[in-house]
Amino acid sequence: MRIIQSGFGAVGQSLAGLLESRDDIYTKYGIMTKFVAISDSGGTIHDESGLDPARMIQKKRQEGTISDSKKSISSIIQNMDADVLIEATPSNYIDGEPGMTNIITALKRGIHVISVNKGPLALALPSLVEMAVYNGVYLRFSGTVGGGTPILNYAKKSLRGERITSFRGILNGTTNYILTSMGGGMSFEEALGDARGRGYVEADESLDLDGWDVAAKLTILSNWVMNQKTTIHQVERDGIRDVTQQDIQRSTERGNAIKLVANCNDVISVGVEDVPFDDPLCIHGTLNAASFTSEHSGTQTIIGRGAGGIETASSVLRDLLDIRQVVTK
Amino acid sequence: MRIIQSGFGAVGQSLAGLLESRDDIYTKYGIMTKFVAISDSGGTIHDESGLDPARMIQKKRQEGTISDSKKSISSIIQNMDADVLIEATPSNYIDGEPGMTNIITALKRGIHVISVNKGPLALALPSLVEMAVYNGVYLRFSGTVGGGTPILNYAKKSLRGERITSFRGILNGTTNYILTSMGGGMSFEEALGDARGRGYVEADESLDLDGWDVAAKLTILSNWVMNQKTTIHQVERDGIRDVTQQDIQRSTERGNAIKLVANCNDVISVGVEDVPFDDPLCIHGTLNAASFTSEHSGTQTIIGRGAGGIETASSVLRDLLDIRQVVTK
Repeated sequence: MRIIQSGFGAVGQSLAGLLESRDDIYTKYGIMTKFVAISDSGGTIHDESGLDPARMIQKKRQEGTISDSKKSISSIIQNMDADVLIEATPSNYIDGEPGMTNIITALKRGIHVISVNKGPLALALPSLVEMAVYNGVYLRFSGTVGGGTPILNYAKKSLRGERITSFRGILNGTTNYILTSMGGGMSFEEALGDARGRGYVEADESLDLDGWDVAAKLTILSNWVMNQKTTIHQVERDGIRDVTQQDIQRSTERGNAIKLVANCNDVISVGVEDVPFDDPLCIHGTLNAASFTSEHSGTQTIIGRGAGGIETASSVLRDLLDIRQVVTK
Repeated sequence: MRIIQSGFGAVGQSLAGLLESRDDIYTKYGIMTKFVAISDSGGTIHDESGLDPARMIQKKRQEGTISDSKKSISSIIQNMDADVLIEATPSNYIDGEPGMTNIITALKRGIHVISVNKGPLALALPSLVEMAVYNGVYLRFSGTVGGGTPILNYAKKSLRGERITSFRGILNGTTNYILTSMGGGMSFEEALGDARGRGYVEADESLDLDGWDVAAKLTILSNWVMNQKTTIHQVERDGIRDVTQQDIQRSTERGNAIKLVANCNDVISVGVEDVPFDDPLCIHGTLNAASFTSEHSGTQTIIGRGAGGIETASSVLRDLLDIRQVVTK
């Protein structure tokens, strides 16, 4: 498979390293991968005969960018021979760019798309899905929700034969870490400072603290799992900035913890809620959790790491296998 | 699909009711189901043109058995035209009968098998899988682990592209309920009495209390998920009879709860362990939980109801869809 990858940050580099290290992807699944172009914020690099992943990672570390070409990534996607675009530029919830243009260009040319960028999906998932179907290609995005934990896949494939009637989840590790620290006695500012120090907080802090990241993931879930045609603008959204140490203590006394919960039933909303300590959803630290309630099987909760370069890269690998299975049928 | 069902207890009746009530199984999946024979402990009933599920449930309730034929279930499986056997007789860990003979007879005749009976699988899963492969049919058993919670399917399908390196789980709701009650202050005898009163304990109490049920589920998991060729005799097995109120208190003081944990890594074992309160595996009441640790994605825990007639019936429906998808390819 000839891969164009837009974005070469933590996930992009982890993926390059993963594909490089796993010989069994060819021996076990028959998939030969080749990066024919990569972009980062500094520019692009491309080679019809394939780029060496290890050298790209090294170049990025040494020079800060892989750039050595004057071509833009959009003209590369428009013109180069490729099977799949892996879109891994940063999420942008204003207009979704540059990911939006990258994805649309690829889909229209009949190139499969795997996106770990939530921006374009949160803003336009219904129409992007339609565009993929119309052009006979696959749009996959397992890594956007739950990092390496296959939450979307679980809901879509493991619960076949049943209707999922509602969903609740804790989908942002950073805010859950801050709320957990506050449960241990820290003030909001102290907990935020600690999370910043550990590198958990996005450069644009509002994405975490004001619930944008959760709202984006919830939009993706509601479309993919619940068959709703929604965008991020339909999500009732609130964050954790107003949670005080007093709120936390009052909640603890009642046997609960305050969590930033994403809900999908009649309404789609993100906001702080009391969650009982013995609810499986009540997870601590940077973990993520998703509870699906289905017709016959009750409520099922899946818990795992929500982020991380190598974890998210493993979900891209699953998407590659998924696409390949379909293509080779 | 022409179905022979051996066993007509809680799961069998729930499945008959489920298939009867869900018109969309035909409209959505194109699957037309027909029970051509059913057995229970009283005997058998069969009709080439199909048995009415609602009437069978009513007959069972009114007469205590569906029996109206002199034919044995094994001769029916041997001779009747059918696509799939649903094996739902009680689990027996001595020789696996009558399920063992039912399953082997069906596989040899080229009839797919869905088993919710753990006995034959715990005793001989490696050879039964081989027999299914050799005869070109499918052997499925989603309902044997986790009831309606698709634990086996999750591990097998949602984590594609990764190796699962180890497994831990709480796989028996009855013992977890008893240990949870003891955590609330009851003695072992009181907690057992309470669980009996609620109908949670198997007629043969040893299956729950001495870890046989967990060992059987663990055997199935280790074969299906970890590709080990094991039988229940290789499981190091211990139960909960020796847990005292003192043990519970000592554990609580350390921030832990005592749980009956199934482990699969270098050894395969079932025994009581301290589990920290903030470990996602530390679930309460009758819930089940399974934690898989994989190569790239860390530890992922899935939590849900572990038993129940309708929940387990929903997993049989998933197996039917799984088989059908393959058959119609």
